[in-house]
Amino acid sequence: MMEQELKQINFAFIGFGNVGRAFARLLINRRRWLIKKYGVEWKITGIATNNHGTCIDARGLPVQKILRSWKAHSNLNNFHNGPSRNSHSDFIRQCGADVLFEMSILDLNGDPASTYIREALRAGLNVITTNKGPVATNFRQLSRLARQRDVQFLYEGTVMDGAPVFNLVRQNLPGTHIRSLRGILNSTTNYILTQMEQGTSFEAALDYVKKKGITEADPRLDLEGWDSAFKLSVLIQALMGGSVKPNDIERHSISEDIGRKVRAAVRRDRRLRLVARAYRQGGRVIGKVELQELEIFDPLAAIRGLSNILVLNTDTMRELAIIENNPSVEQTAFSLFSDLVSIL
Amino acid sequence: MMEQELKQINFAFIGFGNVGRAFARLLINRRRWLIKKYGVEWKITGIATNNHGTCIDARGLPVQKILRSWKAHSNLNNFHNGPSRNSHSDFIRQCGADVLFEMSILDLNGDPASTYIREALRAGLNVITTNKGPVATNFRQLSRLARQRDVQFLYEGTVMDGAPVFNLVRQNLPGTHIRSLRGILNSTTNYILTQMEQGTSFEAALDYVKKKGITEADPRLDLEGWDSAFKLSVLIQALMGGSVKPNDIERHSISEDIGRKVRAAVRRDRRLRLVARAYRQGGRVIGKVELQELEIFDPLAAIRGLSNILVLNTDTMRELAIIENNPSVEQTAFSLFSDLVSIL
Repeated sequence: MMEQELKQINFAFIGFGNVGRAFARLLINRRRWLIKKYGVEWKITGIATNNHGTCIDARGLPVQKILRSWKAHSNLNNFHNGPSRNSHSDFIRQCGADVLFEMSILDLNGDPASTYIREALRAGLNVITTNKGPVATNFRQLSRLARQRDVQFLYEGTVMDGAPVFNLVRQNLPGTHIRSLRGILNSTTNYILTQMEQGTSFEAALDYVKKKGITEADPRLDLEGWDSAFKLSVLIQALMGGSVKPNDIERHSISEDIGRKVRAAVRRDRRLRLVARAYRQGGRVIGKVELQELEIFDPLAAIRGLSNILVLNTDTMRELAIIENNPSVEQTAFSLFSDLVSIL
Repeated sequence: MMEQELKQINFAFIGFGNVGRAFARLLINRRRWLIKKYGVEWKITGIATNNHGTCIDARGLPVQKILRSWKAHSNLNNFHNGPSRNSHSDFIRQCGADVLFEMSILDLNGDPASTYIREALRAGLNVITTNKGPVATNFRQLSRLARQRDVQFLYEGTVMDGAPVFNLVRQNLPGTHIRSLRGILNSTTNYILTQMEQGTSFEAALDYVKKKGITEADPRLDLEGWDSAFKLSVLIQALMGGSVKPNDIERHSISEDIGRKVRAAVRRDRRLRLVARAYRQGGRVIGKVELQELEIFDPLAAIRGLSNILVLNTDTMRELAIIENNPSVEQTAFSLFSDLVSIL
């Protein structure tokens, strides 16, 4: 394909943590593939962060250089080349992007990410997010806004990282009605529960996932079931047409005293799991995040460590399950890439 | 949507057994959905079978009437309204279809289905098949022919019925390289192995799947690993770029004397499964269908009864698995529907 036939597309990032940097590396690795397959050449024209400064450059930021020299104290302001910008709102208006990748961290009220996404959609940017906060709390408003502005609002990475969940139902299960669903959606609690089955202590297991960067910035969001509840809320709103917010979801927590229950389950040849499930009852959808003792041959009982599973009960395919084995930040980064390709 | 805006699309069926009739019912159930979503109105202009006659009617066959009155001795010739047709080749030329649904039964040399599909593609018809025979034996030739004629050749139903496998990789795993894969792809042998774990006899288990219409027309194709080998060959050719034919695949069989091995595995707290797997070795892809004793926490060990699983090892998503729970003919019919929607 000739250079002049290439379509130029500009990206902006909000957030440049582990996921953002893994995604930037993936984009670089797939540069030729994107040119060959879609005739698309990209550049990153802006990166905004809370702790590492913000930079905009309409000519494209030197992303390989930024990645190569990245350190805990790196400051992106050094790469800025444009008008001054005092806030993320300024950034969104000035970044000159066609697609905004929103990768800020989970906050229980969904903000400020909801505000960023709203402003970006209003400004005519496509938005792809890995943040379940804004999707769970403002699903309808943001989806409607995207339709009105004729741009895409995609969020594959909010549940099970890059494993196809929303794209699977949208693209591969046409005309299908989801009757109910259940799954293990939180890696931190599943790692702790399944390590404790093998004799590891609660603290040692929690320490491991903290060090690996698997937990939410505040691990209580994992342990108290909030992470599962946010993901379940997104699933219910996006796949089942329900309007269940995270606050409407009954949650169980896990804490140090869970060991007794884990061991009791194993003695009965069963397994304790933190199960997120949604079902229909009299025209409404109900969501619950519960500690359940499962039969050993339940597919959810076989899910160990950081792995996740989602089981969909449908009118066309009966039960269909998807398992993501042992994910890392690369898999979350892939969700952004997968959504990007949907837009292309 | 106004009547005059509707696009008319004509379908022809080769085969009208359990799958064909389930698919016809699904089409009827989704008639409004197809109009609303794709502006498409369909009719079936031809059905060809080996044992129930053949009929063509350019005005559209009365499919609801045919289904309602279907009996073991039904003869479709009664519904024929057109020029005489002496062979399936005549049928393909005269059926007036835009899409041919090829649902004939598995034959080890891939014929006559390969011939039907070749003739249909040459005549400019899109072809959707559930028959792994022609896809495994003539994958490259038929795929190339479809590209040359600018029509689609789709085969989602050849592996795991309507569970998205090929569409999943094509649509949801962009730019992804499949390093290796393994799975349980044959329902008959998995049902027998897992029922024997619970004390059922080989004959009783085999009788059950025969009566349920789960086995191939000749159950030896299941028991001798041929069904798994054909599916594995399709997976290797379509997803891994290999050129492994069913005959190139080492196969294990199961027979009555398997009971001893099943029980020995259970005593060791392990499970015996017929595992189909493919891996790369020095630039080539190798395929094997093997009886393996699996650890109890292997996801494949948790697959019981008629259920299937496929685990993909990828460069983008690490390990990703899809499970189809307890499928029936409706799930195979859904694969045809899912492929049809891909074309629309």
